[in-house]
Amino acid sequence: MHKIGENRSILGILGGLGPLSSAYFYELITEHTEASRDQDHIDIILSSRATTPDRTAFIMGRSEEDPLPYMIEDAKLLEQYGADAIVIPCNTAHYFIKEVRRSVNVPVPSIITETCRHIKESGRKKALILATEGTVSSGSYQAELESMGLEWAVPDEDGQRIVTDIIYGDVKSGRVPSPEKLFSVAYPMFEAGCDCAILGCTELSVLKRQFKDDVRFVDSLEALAYCAIKLFGHKPTGFTSDYEE
Amino acid sequence: MHKIGENRSILGILGGLGPLSSAYFYELITEHTEASRDQDHIDIILSSRATTPDRTAFIMGRSEEDPLPYMIEDAKLLEQYGADAIVIPCNTAHYFIKEVRRSVNVPVPSIITETCRHIKESGRKKALILATEGTVSSGSYQAELESMGLEWAVPDEDGQRIVTDIIYGDVKSGRVPSPEKLFSVAYPMFEAGCDCAILGCTELSVLKRQFKDDVRFVDSLEALAYCAIKLFGHKPTGFTSDYEE
Repeated sequence: MHKIGENRSILGILGGLGPLSSAYFYELITEHTEASRDQDHIDIILSSRATTPDRTAFIMGRSEEDPLPYMIEDAKLLEQYGADAIVIPCNTAHYFIKEVRRSVNVPVPSIITETCRHIKESGRKKALILATEGTVSSGSYQAELESMGLEWAVPDEDGQRIVTDIIYGDVKSGRVPSPEKLFSVAYPMFEAGCDCAILGCTELSVLKRQFKDDVRFVDSLEALAYCAIKLFGHKPTGFTSDYEE
Repeated sequence: MHKIGENRSILGILGGLGPLSSAYFYELITEHTEASRDQDHIDIILSSRATTPDRTAFIMGRSEEDPLPYMIEDAKLLEQYGADAIVIPCNTAHYFIKEVRRSVNVPVPSIITETCRHIKESGRKKALILATEGTVSSGSYQAELESMGLEWAVPDEDGQRIVTDIIYGDVKSGRVPSPEKLFSVAYPMFEAGCDCAILGCTELSVLKRQFKDDVRFVDSLEALAYCAIKLFGHKPTGFTSDYEE
């Protein structure tokens, strides 16, 4: 299909879950790829399928609308377009990654595995998991962290309510709140023994723009961007000191 | 092809020219679409083909590498994917829009026409054109403004050199400079009778994030985003007061 860019490789992004965080993910890759001109950047095909049914609502049994068929259709369309690998900048959607992987013949790296690997490699021991109810209750992060010999903690009910409100009440509506709301959940847990907090929802990654330098907050979106840039043979640049470049 | 989202409509973005401004364009559409949840946003397929040969270098005869075949291939791939309209968030690429339009069966709105229409509708009379040498020398903005009965001006040689340096030396390299550099070119022209300045290069739109409120600077990327949101039957929100919402 690619008569012109014969040897070109294309990164596929299965996005729109939600759109604001997909936009930020695309921007993260661009800003963190060593480049001095347009042509030094990675070719990307991004599907922002915002109308995909809500992942958390389905996982929590609050909705019958299954997002998986939409994700599989998108993955196949991206592969058809020429994508050589597909990343999904959404933690909740990781719940469906096995089926998505089965539906295509290209690699589909996991945002959760990449985030936990970074925590392990940067020598951290106990992670607070900040994510949607869907991600928390699916246990994806807990299982991945344990498999790497790491400890974990989750917020109490009130804390989770605040996190959910930031994600759905604010960011998904296009508003970016002050990070104080998130700090009110994380700081007490740092005092209680967590040495890092996973921003395990890409809407929280959007928030992190406001406190990039606090390396205790490990951004799952940054971890996936770092992985994607390396996967396509480009040099990551400008990540926090935690990332070996 | 779209068994699932039968009646869905998809906005195609022919991007990567350059990647940072495509990311910002995608973000602009997301931030300015009235939405209270992911599913209220527009479905988008964005091709960020960063490796497309430099448009200005070709237009100015400094390179033999023709970007048009790449753009046509991308446009066809986007149409094949299901795009119902294709926008190109790049002013310089407008030089090739006739051929791109001929290559597909879906509408391809022009960033230049949309920008000039906004200037006309907001009652302005004389526009300073801030753009790449390629765009300026192609005369696209000049012709469009004149056809609408508007006056125009372009920077002198030194001024154009500064604009080119902002675009290529800074933004395309992933650096976003302070707007002062741009003001040093625009302010004298405002005093000389221009009542607005077209940010006629999407790299300059990225800069505008830092002075959004100065409505004298008409951002071509905002004009195209406004057009795309309306084209897909969504409600634009949060644009400057110049835009009727």
